[in-house]
Amino acid sequence: MIEAALFGAGRIGKIHAANLARQPGVRLKYVVDVDAESAQALARLHGAAVAGVEQALADPTVRAVVIASSTDTHSDLIVRAAAAGKAIFCEKPVDLTLARAQAAADAVKQAGVLCMIGFQRRYDPTFAAVKARLLAGEIGAPEMLTITSRDPGAPPVSYIQVSGGIFKDMLIHDFDIFRWILDDEAASVYATGSCLVDPAIGAAGDLDCTAVTIRTHGGRLCQINTSRRAAYGYDQRFEILGSDGMLQAENHRPTEVVSHTARSVSHDKPEHFFLERYRAAYAAEIAHFFDAMMNGTPLRTTVHDGLKALELAEAATTSWREKCIVNL
Amino acid sequence: MIEAALFGAGRIGKIHAANLARQPGVRLKYVVDVDAESAQALARLHGAAVAGVEQALADPTVRAVVIASSTDTHSDLIVRAAAAGKAIFCEKPVDLTLARAQAAADAVKQAGVLCMIGFQRRYDPTFAAVKARLLAGEIGAPEMLTITSRDPGAPPVSYIQVSGGIFKDMLIHDFDIFRWILDDEAASVYATGSCLVDPAIGAAGDLDCTAVTIRTHGGRLCQINTSRRAAYGYDQRFEILGSDGMLQAENHRPTEVVSHTARSVSHDKPEHFFLERYRAAYAAEIAHFFDAMMNGTPLRTTVHDGLKALELAEAATTSWREKCIVNL
Amino acid sequence: MIEAALFGAGRIGKIHAANLARQPGVRLKYVVDVDAESAQALARLHGAAVAGVEQALADPTVRAVVIASSTDTHSDLIVRAAAAGKAIFCEKPVDLTLARAQAAADAVKQAGVLCMIGFQRRYDPTFAAVKARLLAGEIGAPEMLTITSRDPGAPPVSYIQVSGGIFKDMLIHDFDIFRWILDDEAASVYATGSCLVDPAIGAAGDLDCTAVTIRTHGGRLCQINTSRRAAYGYDQRFEILGSDGMLQAENHRPTEVVSHTARSVSHDKPEHFFLERYRAAYAAEIAHFFDAMMNGTPLRTTVHDGLKALELAEAATTSWREKCIVNL
Amino acid sequence: MIEAALFGAGRIGKIHAANLARQPGVRLKYVVDVDAESAQALARLHGAAVAGVEQALADPTVRAVVIASSTDTHSDLIVRAAAAGKAIFCEKPVDLTLARAQAAADAVKQAGVLCMIGFQRRYDPTFAAVKARLLAGEIGAPEMLTITSRDPGAPPVSYIQVSGGIFKDMLIHDFDIFRWILDDEAASVYATGSCLVDPAIGAAGDLDCTAVTIRTHGGRLCQINTSRRAAYGYDQRFEILGSDGMLQAENHRPTEVVSHTARSVSHDKPEHFFLERYRAAYAAEIAHFFDAMMNGTPLRTTVHDGLKALELAEAATTSWREKCIVNL
Repeated sequence: MIEAALFGAGRIGKIHAANLARQPGVRLKYVVDVDAESAQALARLHGAAVAGVEQALADPTVRAVVIASSTDTHSDLIVRAAAAGKAIFCEKPVDLTLARAQAAADAVKQAGVLCMIGFQRRYDPTFAAVKARLLAGEIGAPEMLTITSRDPGAPPVSYIQVSGGIFKDMLIHDFDIFRWILDDEAASVYATGSCLVDPAIGAAGDLDCTAVTIRTHGGRLCQINTSRRAAYGYDQRFEILGSDGMLQAENHRPTEVVSHTARSVSHDKPEHFFLERYRAAYAAEIAHFFDAMMNGTPLRTTVHDGLKALELAEAATTSWREKCIVNL
Repeated sequence: MIEAALFGAGRIGKIHAANLARQPGVRLKYVVDVDAESAQALARLHGAAVAGVEQALADPTVRAVVIASSTDTHSDLIVRAAAAGKAIFCEKPVDLTLARAQAAADAVKQAGVLCMIGFQRRYDPTFAAVKARLLAGEIGAPEMLTITSRDPGAPPVSYIQVSGGIFKDMLIHDFDIFRWILDDEAASVYATGSCLVDPAIGAAGDLDCTAVTIRTHGGRLCQINTSRRAAYGYDQRFEILGSDGMLQAENHRPTEVVSHTARSVSHDKPEHFFLERYRAAYAAEIAHFFDAMMNGTPLRTTVHDGLKALELAEAATTSWREKCIVNL
Repeated sequence: MIEAALFGAGRIGKIHAANLARQPGVRLKYVVDVDAESAQALARLHGAAVAGVEQALADPTVRAVVIASSTDTHSDLIVRAAAAGKAIFCEKPVDLTLARAQAAADAVKQAGVLCMIGFQRRYDPTFAAVKARLLAGEIGAPEMLTITSRDPGAPPVSYIQVSGGIFKDMLIHDFDIFRWILDDEAASVYATGSCLVDPAIGAAGDLDCTAVTIRTHGGRLCQINTSRRAAYGYDQRFEILGSDGMLQAENHRPTEVVSHTARSVSHDKPEHFFLERYRAAYAAEIAHFFDAMMNGTPLRTTVHDGLKALELAEAATTSWREKCIVNL
Repeated sequence: MIEAALFGAGRIGKIHAANLARQPGVRLKYVVDVDAESAQALARLHGAAVAGVEQALADPTVRAVVIASSTDTHSDLIVRAAAAGKAIFCEKPVDLTLARAQAAADAVKQAGVLCMIGFQRRYDPTFAAVKARLLAGEIGAPEMLTITSRDPGAPPVSYIQVSGGIFKDMLIHDFDIFRWILDDEAASVYATGSCLVDPAIGAAGDLDCTAVTIRTHGGRLCQINTSRRAAYGYDQRFEILGSDGMLQAENHRPTEVVSHTARSVSHDKPEHFFLERYRAAYAAEIAHFFDAMMNGTPLRTTVHDGLKALELAEAATTSWREKCIVNL
């Protein structure tokens, strides 16, 4: 039986707690959150205890930690958990600065512990099938990748202000998809964007629409387009052109109803937001983490992946702010 | 150069005239219609002359006739044109009674002339592709056929009254599709229906919705569902299940626009009605007719096909009226 | 806390056990199965005890029973469970004979207990959305229903022999969908069919392909086509034409990958079989059952629905065997 | 009756000649081509005469010229035809250099003649419907445009060498779509690319895959991805995100057959290449040109549009060659 501690009892913490509860051989022992009430409620739901960071990390029976607290706490918790010899699952991003993220990565390396970053999209059934079929050679050698990544609506400016900016907060996932699908690294990054959705986001020094282009060392091309607003829902698609064809990852829909009326032929909008869209992915990533712990299966999303995605986010931010092409 | 006479200058006559005009080596010489004005207008458009039936059939330079006049004139015109040694293209149905249709078929046989019936659906690119792929063995042996055939809206009762009833007027096409796709003949027919669209149709002794089941000598099953009204447009689909898979013929759309809004994800309704939906088919069938005349290509839709479809329409009418299963 | 007993530890019993385990406030107390090993394994997995029928029904703490044993035991278990005052969830069909099914229904009525029949399709997200949108008036008054229901492959003849025949075993679900979607009862039933998949099924006195037509008292039309084999997977669709449009329930797919190659543009086949396709439905129906127990929510699939579906299955069997139209 | 002269009897010249022949009130008088045999054959097919440039332009009965000759002759022919007072339809691009294209535009302006550039995509039913629905406000204010533009296979290097490069030869259409759909002008252009399809193209100093980003004065974003090779056919799509939704222009297919087999569910690949895909557009643009001549309808694609698209092609070429962001 693996005992685990969960840091963070918010929206994403609750998801992880529920998925944790379904892993055979795993038990949630502690819930840690600065908000005592949230911690209490979640702990009660899963038969766990509330604890502080220190207590949770000091308990030798706790072999795994799941970090789902606010971004600014990630790298510090990774360092401390690594020092305590725990296997670590940490939500993206590793940190908002490369330096601190690197420090976390170093700590993990030194301690020799498992550290998985929660790039859940790699575990999505549709995305994972694209990757598998690509590897199986279905469309030959990959050449061009187009990623569309749009939220249903912009978050409040208070969120934007602590988010680290759209490239670190939102595109961090797309940068990871880029590296994973093309299996290649960026040679140059160009990013531009606008504030077309909410002027307050611009006033906060951020963008709400972006267009990013990456050219890899192998000459492959990747274009990412992102918006904080898609009136029709959560739009999460990508398509990869290869020498022998193309694979597309299309949106998921809540139902397969098709309606024919005098007005049009229509079907459901995409699943509403990330909790619905990536429900299966969140379950699969936690299962993967414990599978890695128990059976030595190699981790598919490591702290190195977290660092590389952050590096791209920084390059994109620089490209946008300084109106230049950033070479890596 | 083949000179041709056209009987009927109405909606469908105009279509045939325009397609005739595009055949290399073919010239429309006469337009015949009881409505002198319509005949005149169409003749003028295509540089043809107006003539009466007698004159057109008596002209030895006229080698082909296209019969697109009202249904009650078809069999008589076939008989006369056959006697005059003309190649005949005739709109469906051959006649509203089997006896007269048989007489027309006999006349054709005796005269040894070409006689093609305008079951244009067999020449539709989508339907023809299904047939070709079925013949190529893509889904193994055909087993079950489902046909959906719905008009956008009910015609006026005045039309219904001279139509011969829904089975001869509307399902005649579906009966032909059944024979063509399954390449088998009916052993039994069951038909039922209702008047759900327009009570005046019921008052006229007809149905506006039907459900027909045919079992073939080979044990294959066919279900046809028909309605005089589909609020979303002209619905023309069929699907054939085989031992190794299924082929579907789906609706055609005017454009390939997809719209995503806060309300739904939608695309165009089906093409509005038969003139749009079967535009390519009408052109292809006339080309086929003259190809048969010029090059001896075997006709794909003969007067025999016209008779067999009519036989099924009669059987279905009997099944419905007498509430019985009709064995053939 | 509601304690429950499960009868049947086979394929479907396991599904129900797992879903039961996820209901808050519900505990699986006993697993009952003639196969001691299966019962033992399933009981162990969920922390339940193995018991006999008598013991399970005699235990006053057991307030609910889930009947997932073989069909021939259903009605008897319903009668005994009703007599013991238990709330009953029973898999379809209620029984293979109307008389015994009626006896079960009578027992339920007399005991005044809840009795839900497992027509899980009504709880499927896509099917339930069609029903809800139909009720909301999206396509006006319902007129014609077409149901396509095909298994990926035929079961062994040993299964066929005890199945009660294709109408009771397979179409029972479609008959329930018909009643639910059209909200109308059958006035006449016509059924025909063939044995095109496996001659052994015919030798066993059964069909493997059927075509059924139902006309309701309100003149609505329903066509059902069924096959024991669809090479492309589990095909579960229906479409309902209304005065103002059409609603289609389309197949579900494992992923939303689209592949473009030199050969074709393709996507996934339908979800493989009923355990995958109706996973959400099975979870939702058990939740509904316990919701009805706890909160008095009216049952959506009662023993009456079970009886009516069986009545249609009998009528269809008669229509087929006696080559007649059966009036109800 | 408008008499017209056609310059160029090649692939695209033949298309225009056939469409010209279908315009009521228009007659093709001359066919001009350096290849006498091609000129002769095409002239014969349409009952026209073969002529030289001089003769055709000197004939006062010729009121319209259609320029479909090689790109290097376009601007010169425009200048001469303008001087002769002819209405001009010219294939894209106006020229390979901005200076000469500007000279042609000046000549048109000075002569006060009609001059339409053959950006046929604007006349495609699907693309035109997107534009119309965008103008009608269906998705609010346009924000982001993504254009996918891929040929089925790379042309021979001999073609590449005289093509002016991928940006002027292939993306010229996409630059026009960008201006037309967003109704805004470029403020900055970033282009990159690779040679992944055919090394000979790289050796000829060109690219075969490109990724272009345009930011408009209004802050709107456009990404274009292009490849000389799509194994699955001619891929011509775009999608426009607006404040209230998204409109997509999807590929057209030859038929609407859907095939379900044990392997996958598939439909047709996109229409094979531009002659098939834009058949309707080529017909509509010629109709539009003569409609403008006869009825004064304002031209939808003027020589100004030709210049602006060329300007973008030059900017993209510079951006790529000098690895910089080009501000306009």
